[in-house]
Amino acid sequence: MVLDAHRKAKGKIEILPRIKLDNADDLTKYYTPGVAYVAEAIAKEKDLVFEYTSKANSVAIITNGTRVLGLGDVGPYAAITVMESKSVIYKRFAGVDAIPLSLDTKDENEIINLCRNISPSFGGIHLEDIESPKVFRINKALSEKLDIPIFHDDRHGTAVVTLAGVINSLKLAGKRMNTSKIVINGAGAAGMGIAELLSIAGVENLFVLDSAGLIYKDRKNNMNEFKKDIAEYTNKENMSGGLSDIIDGTDIFISAVPSFNFDGSYINRMNEKPIVFALSNPKPEISYDKAKGSGAFIAATGRSDTPNSLNNMICYPPIVMGLLSVRAKSLSEGILYAAAKALAESVGKQLNTENIIPTISKNNPLVFMPNIAAAVAEEAINEGIARINVEAKEVKRLIKERIRRIMMIEKKLFKG
Amino acid sequence: MVLDAHRKAKGKIEILPRIKLDNADDLTKYYTPGVAYVAEAIAKEKDLVFEYTSKANSVAIITNGTRVLGLGDVGPYAAITVMESKSVIYKRFAGVDAIPLSLDTKDENEIINLCRNISPSFGGIHLEDIESPKVFRINKALSEKLDIPIFHDDRHGTAVVTLAGVINSLKLAGKRMNTSKIVINGAGAAGMGIAELLSIAGVENLFVLDSAGLIYKDRKNNMNEFKKDIAEYTNKENMSGGLSDIIDGTDIFISAVPSFNFDGSYINRMNEKPIVFALSNPKPEISYDKAKGSGAFIAATGRSDTPNSLNNMICYPPIVMGLLSVRAKSLSEGILYAAAKALAESVGKQLNTENIIPTISKNNPLVFMPNIAAAVAEEAINEGIARINVEAKEVKRLIKERIRRIMMIEKKLFKG
Repeated sequence: MVLDAHRKAKGKIEILPRIKLDNADDLTKYYTPGVAYVAEAIAKEKDLVFEYTSKANSVAIITNGTRVLGLGDVGPYAAITVMESKSVIYKRFAGVDAIPLSLDTKDENEIINLCRNISPSFGGIHLEDIESPKVFRINKALSEKLDIPIFHDDRHGTAVVTLAGVINSLKLAGKRMNTSKIVINGAGAAGMGIAELLSIAGVENLFVLDSAGLIYKDRKNNMNEFKKDIAEYTNKENMSGGLSDIIDGTDIFISAVPSFNFDGSYINRMNEKPIVFALSNPKPEISYDKAKGSGAFIAATGRSDTPNSLNNMICYPPIVMGLLSVRAKSLSEGILYAAAKALAESVGKQLNTENIIPTISKNNPLVFMPNIAAAVAEEAINEGIARINVEAKEVKRLIKERIRRIMMIEKKLFKG
Repeated sequence: MVLDAHRKAKGKIEILPRIKLDNADDLTKYYTPGVAYVAEAIAKEKDLVFEYTSKANSVAIITNGTRVLGLGDVGPYAAITVMESKSVIYKRFAGVDAIPLSLDTKDENEIINLCRNISPSFGGIHLEDIESPKVFRINKALSEKLDIPIFHDDRHGTAVVTLAGVINSLKLAGKRMNTSKIVINGAGAAGMGIAELLSIAGVENLFVLDSAGLIYKDRKNNMNEFKKDIAEYTNKENMSGGLSDIIDGTDIFISAVPSFNFDGSYINRMNEKPIVFALSNPKPEISYDKAKGSGAFIAATGRSDTPNSLNNMICYPPIVMGLLSVRAKSLSEGILYAAAKALAESVGKQLNTENIIPTISKNNPLVFMPNIAAAVAEEAINEGIARINVEAKEVKRLIKERIRRIMMIEKKLFKG
C-alpha cells in the first residue's frame, strides 16, 4: 500500500520551469542570446548570482546512505527516496528548493570536495544520514572552506527541536535551565548536537553517555576529538560509570540510541516531575505510553502518532529558509538557539504536558514556520553573517507567500 | 529588459512535490515510517530505484563554466543561468527533470569523481560547456565507469542537429552522403562530434581543420589523442594545408569556430549547390544573408532568428528522454545517427532550402520530439543497451503526455 503509493508517484519531486517557453521570443529572452547577457553580468559581479539564478533559494541535500533512519547503512540508492521526502518537506513547509544528491562514496575527502565543487549553485548545504564521526569532520571542513551555511540535520535539527521541548517542559515543571540535571544517552550526531545546544542554552548540570558509559575528561577508550569537546563542557566533576550511576535526581533524560531500551523503573529514581525524551525513530527507547505509565511527568518521542512529536522535520525547513532569506554565509549555535526559542514560543497558550511542541496540521505551518524563519534571519543579521538585511516582517511575509503558493499548486495539480 | 525578466523570475527552475503532504497520514505514508519500507525494498533490489524514485526521469547537467556559449570561461557562477535555461528546455520539450550543477573546479579527476559519486540519483549525465579536450577525457572515463548514458551536448547534440541538416540539404541538392565532399572547420567538441557522426553516416570525403590547418595522420603540432582519431577516418590522402587548399569542390562547409570569419568569396570555389553551415552562436562565422548573397544554395546558422536554425536545443531533450525511457546503460553513435535521421524526417513535406530543420513553435514539439525519442529508444533496445523494452508507440505517448502536462502547468501557474 505504501509501496504502491510511492510507485505511483514515480519519484516524489520534479523540476518545473518558473518561466514560460512557448515561442521564439521566449527562447530569445530566456535562452540564447538573452541568457548570455545574464551570464556576462554575473561574471562581472559574482553576487548577482543571488539575484538572477535559483542559488538564493536552493539547498543541496547530501547523503551517502550510511546511516538512514533507524535502518543503518542502506547505501546511496535506497537513501534517495528518504532524501526526496526531505525535499518535499522543505518545499511544502518553507518554499525551499532542495536537491537531493545521494553519493556513492564513503570517502570523506571526496564528499568534502564534492560539496565544495557544487557550492556555486546553492545557498546552503544540508548534510543528512551520513555516519558519525565522519560527518562531523565533513561539517567542520565545509564550514571552514565555504561561504554558505552547512546545516547537519541529524545534529542541528534534532538539537533545535529537542531544546524547544526542553524549554517548554521545564516551564511546565516549574524548573530552570541552569539548575536542572540533564542526562543525554548517545554521542552520535543527535546526542552531540543536543549536548552542544543545551550547553549554549545554559544547562550546567549536563551529562552525556555513549556505549562506553559516561564521557569524562581523560577517558581513554572509545574517544574522538568531538567527544573530547563534549567532556570539556559536561560532567564537571569528571564522573565515570554508566546510566545507573547518574540517573538519580535527573530532571530530564534524553536518549538517541536506536538499540537502547530505557527501563521504566529508572524513572522512579529521577527527580520529581521527571521528563523523558526517547528520540529514536521509528522505535523509541521507551514508548510514550510506557514512559507515562512509569511516572513520567512529560514524555516525548520522534514519532508523529503520539503526543509531543520531537521530529526535526518541524524545524529544518524554516531554519534553512531563514538562512537563505538573508543569504547567510554560515550557521552558528546562536542561530540554532534562536530557532529553538522561536519554536518553543510558537506553542503559545496551547502549552500543556501533552503539547510541548506544535503538531503539523494543514494550516498551522503558516503560523510557526514564519516565526522560526524570522528568528533565524534576525539572529544571522545580528551576528553579522548575513549578506543582506531583511526585516523579520518581510521574512514572515515571504515564507507565508511561498507556503500558500505550494498549497495552491497542490490543489491545482493534485486535485484537478 | 532581458536582465529584468531574469531578475523577476528569481531563477528559472524550482523543485516541486509530486505528492500532497497536508496531514499526519500523508507524512506517515511519504515520510517516516512509510519511506523506510521503500528504502528497505530498494536496499534489497537495487533496480527498484527506477520504480520508486525520481532517478528514472532525472539527468544531471554538469558544467564548470569554462566554455559557455561564445563567451568562453565565465566561471561556474555565471554558468548557472545558462544551465537553468537548459533545464527548462529539457522539461518543456521532453518532460525530463534536469538538475544543473555548476562546478567550482577545473580538475578533470574531481569532475569525474563527482559525476561517479552522484550517479545513483540520476538516469543520465549531461556534460555542458566544459573546455575540450578535457571534456573528452571526462566523457570517456565516465562512459567506462558508469552504467548510465553520458551525453555531451556540445559534441553529441550539435552532431545530431548538424547531421539532420546535412541529410536534408543533400536531399534538396540531389547529392549523396558517400560521394559528397564535406569540410569541417573546428576540432573542438562540436567539430569532433560532427566529424564522428558524419563518418558513421557514410561520409567518405571528409576533412577537418583546426587552428593549425588540416588534420592529418602524423601531424606533429597541436595534436591530441582525439585529433589522432579524427586523422584515422578523415583526409584519406593525408593532405596538409589550410582552408584555401581544400575548399575547391566542397559540397558542404561546416564551421564551429567562434573567432573565425568565413569569406563569402570562398563559396564561389565550392561545388555547385554549395551548402554552408555557420554554427557559432550568437555570432555565426558568416551571416545567413551574406552566405545566401554569396551564392550558397543552402545556408544555416545556430541562431533562432534566421531560417534553418541548427541549434542543439531541438534534439537534446528527446534524445535523453528516449534514453531514460528504456533506462539505457550507455549512449552510442548508432543512437545519435538514429536521432539525426528521425529529426531530418520530421520536416516532412515542409522540406525546402529555407526549412531544412523544424522550427520550434507552440505545438510542433508534440510532433517531432516524440519521433526522435522513439527512434532513440528503439535503437537502444536493438543495440542491447536498454534495461527494459518499451514500444516506440508507448515512448511517443509518454513524451506527448509529459509535454502536454507541462503546457497545462504553464497555463495554470503562469496565467492564473
